[in-house]
Amino acid sequence: MAETASAGGCHLGVDLGGTEIKAVALSMSGGILAQGRASTPRTGVRAVIAAMHGLAARVAGGVPIQGAGVAVPGVVDMGRGLVKFLPNVPGVWANVPLVEELGRLLGVGCVLLNDGRAATYGELCLGAGRGCRDFVLLAVGTGIGGGVVVDGELLLGSGGHAGEVGHQVIDMHGPRCACGGWGCAESLASGPALVAAAVRAVVQGMDTGLHAACGGDVGRITPSLVAEVAGAGDPVASELLEEVAHRLGTAVGNLVVVLNPERVVIGGGLSLAGERLLTGIRSTMAERIGWYLRHAPVEVVAAELGVNAGALGAAAWARRLAVGRSALGEGLGL
Amino acid sequence: MAETASAGGCHLGVDLGGTEIKAVALSMSGGILAQGRASTPRTGVRAVIAAMHGLAARVAGGVPIQGAGVAVPGVVDMGRGLVKFLPNVPGVWANVPLVEELGRLLGVGCVLLNDGRAATYGELCLGAGRGCRDFVLLAVGTGIGGGVVVDGELLLGSGGHAGEVGHQVIDMHGPRCACGGWGCAESLASGPALVAAAVRAVVQGMDTGLHAACGGDVGRITPSLVAEVAGAGDPVASELLEEVAHRLGTAVGNLVVVLNPERVVIGGGLSLAGERLLTGIRSTMAERIGWYLRHAPVEVVAAELGVNAGALGAAAWARRLAVGRSALGEGLGL
Repeated sequence: MAETASAGGCHLGVDLGGTEIKAVALSMSGGILAQGRASTPRTGVRAVIAAMHGLAARVAGGVPIQGAGVAVPGVVDMGRGLVKFLPNVPGVWANVPLVEELGRLLGVGCVLLNDGRAATYGELCLGAGRGCRDFVLLAVGTGIGGGVVVDGELLLGSGGHAGEVGHQVIDMHGPRCACGGWGCAESLASGPALVAAAVRAVVQGMDTGLHAACGGDVGRITPSLVAEVAGAGDPVASELLEEVAHRLGTAVGNLVVVLNPERVVIGGGLSLAGERLLTGIRSTMAERIGWYLRHAPVEVVAAELGVNAGALGAAAWARRLAVGRSALGEGLGL
Repeated sequence: MAETASAGGCHLGVDLGGTEIKAVALSMSGGILAQGRASTPRTGVRAVIAAMHGLAARVAGGVPIQGAGVAVPGVVDMGRGLVKFLPNVPGVWANVPLVEELGRLLGVGCVLLNDGRAATYGELCLGAGRGCRDFVLLAVGTGIGGGVVVDGELLLGSGGHAGEVGHQVIDMHGPRCACGGWGCAESLASGPALVAAAVRAVVQGMDTGLHAACGGDVGRITPSLVAEVAGAGDPVASELLEEVAHRLGTAVGNLVVVLNPERVVIGGGLSLAGERLLTGIRSTMAERIGWYLRHAPVEVVAAELGVNAGALGAAAWARRLAVGRSALGEGLGL
C-alpha cells in the first residue's frame, strides 16, 4: 500500500496463475493503492472467472475502476479478448471470451495479455526496465516466460504472440519440452530442470549436501534449496546452478544478438538465486558472444517487481491504453 | 536497367563484399536505373574505398546523386558512420570513417549499415518482404546474416546492432563458429557447413554420387553441387541437405517464437537449393513449434532480390532517410 490517494479512480491488474490469482489497483498516477491474492479454483472456467472478479472487486475496495488488465499464462487473442489455450489452469480454456465476461462483471473495459508480456510491461513501467528503450525480460520459474521491449514499446509481433523467449532451442538434441518441442531453454534452464538435475545427483549417490538438505526425500528438493546448498559452498549444488546459469546465458545471448537490447532483466523464482545466477549468465555471454558485446554492451540485472510483476504490468497496460499514450496495439484492434 | 527516367537524380547503394563490390542506382521513384560490380581490391582500405567510389560514379553515370547508402559485411557504428570491424575484407577496418570519406569523394550525404540489414531493408522495400509489417530475413551463404523488421521498420536495437540472426546458438555443444562462439546457426547451417558435411561423406567413402560429381576432388564441392546431386535423387546428398534444412528450421523457429513475424524470407546462396530447402525448414518448424504455429501462422518464402539485395537495400535506405519518411535512426543520430 504505497499510496492512499485514489482521486479519479484506479486501474486494476489481475494475474491468473495455475495455483494463485493476484491483483493490484494502481492509482491514476501509477502508484499502488492495494493488492491481494486468492487461490485459483480447481473446478473450471466459471469458478476461475468468478474468483478473479471477487478478488478484483475486493482489491478495488470501492474506488471507481477505470479499466482492468488481465494477464494469463498461455495463448491469447489480444484483439478479440479471447483466451485460446491455458495448459496450466483448471478448466477448458479454448476461446473463452475473458475480456467480455470480466468486463461485464466489473462494469469496465478490459484488456488481455500473456503473463510474460504483462511482467515485461510491468518491469518497463515500474521496475528494472524503467528508462529503457530496448530490453528483454526472462522470467525463470516453473517455465521460462518473458517478453521484449523495442524502442519503448512492448513487442507484440504480427498477431500479439511475440516474446516466447523460453522456447528458443539452445540444444537441438536436448530433452523434450512441455511445449512439444525439444531442447528449448525452458526444458534445460527452468526451475524443474534444476530440480531434476539435483534429484539425479542425490539418487546417483553423489557426495553433496543436498542429501542432508532434503532429509533424504528428493520430493523436497526445490530450486531454492539447491541455491541454498550451493550458497553454503557445496560443489555439486554449485555446479548444478552454474550449469543452469550457463544455459540461461546461452539463451540470453541468442536474444541479445538478435535484439541488441541495452538491458536484460532476469525475473521469476529462480532469480532468487541472485548474483550467483547473474554472474554465471554474464560469464557465459562473455565466452560466447564476446565479439558482439565489445561493440554492443548489455547489462544483465535482476527483476524488481517480484511475484506481482504480472498484475502490475496488466494494470499498467490497462492504464496505458486508457490514457491513450500510444497507438500500440491498433493493428490488433485493441 | 528496369527504368531509364532519371529526372531528379538517383540514390546509390554500394554493397562491399569480401570478393566483390556491387552498386545500384535507384531513381527517385525507386526504380533501378543502373547496376554494376567490381572486384574488391586486395591491397587495403584506401584501395577498397577508391574502388567503391569508382564503381559508384560509374553506376550513377552522370545522373545527379542525391545520396548514397553503403552496406558492409561486419560491425558498424551507424550513428557516426564508422566501420568498426570487417573480418572478411582486405585491410584493417577499425574505426574507418567510411561515411565521411565516401561522402567527400561522391560529394553527397552517405549512410552506412550492415549488409544483412541492408538486404533485409531491400527485401522489405523491393522484394519478398513487400507489404509486411513484421518479417525476418536469413541470408544463408558463406555465413548467415539477415535482419528483422518490426512494425514496418528495420529493427536496429539500442546501438544499431540488432539482427545477427546467424549467431543464435541452436546446439550449445556444437562446433566452433567463426565468431568465436560455438553451436551458432552459422556454424551448423551455412554453405561451408554443408560443404564440410559433403566432404566428410566423400572422404569416408560413402556410397554417393558426390564422388563422381566432384570428379574425385573434394575441393570442387560447393553448396550448389550438393543441391544438384541431391536433386538428382542421391540419398546421401539429400540427407545432408535435409539436415541443413532441419538446422535452419530450428534457427527460424527460434526467431519466430520471439518475434512473431508474418513471414520469414530465406536468401543467400544456399537458398538456390530452392523449394527443397524451404520444405525442410517448414517441416522442422511444424515438428518443433507446431503448438505456436497453430495460433501464430508464418509464411516461409524465398528471397527475391538475389545478389543485389544488399546494394538495393542500401540505396533504398539512403532514399528513405533523404525523403524523411520516418524518424527511424534518430536515436542513433542518423
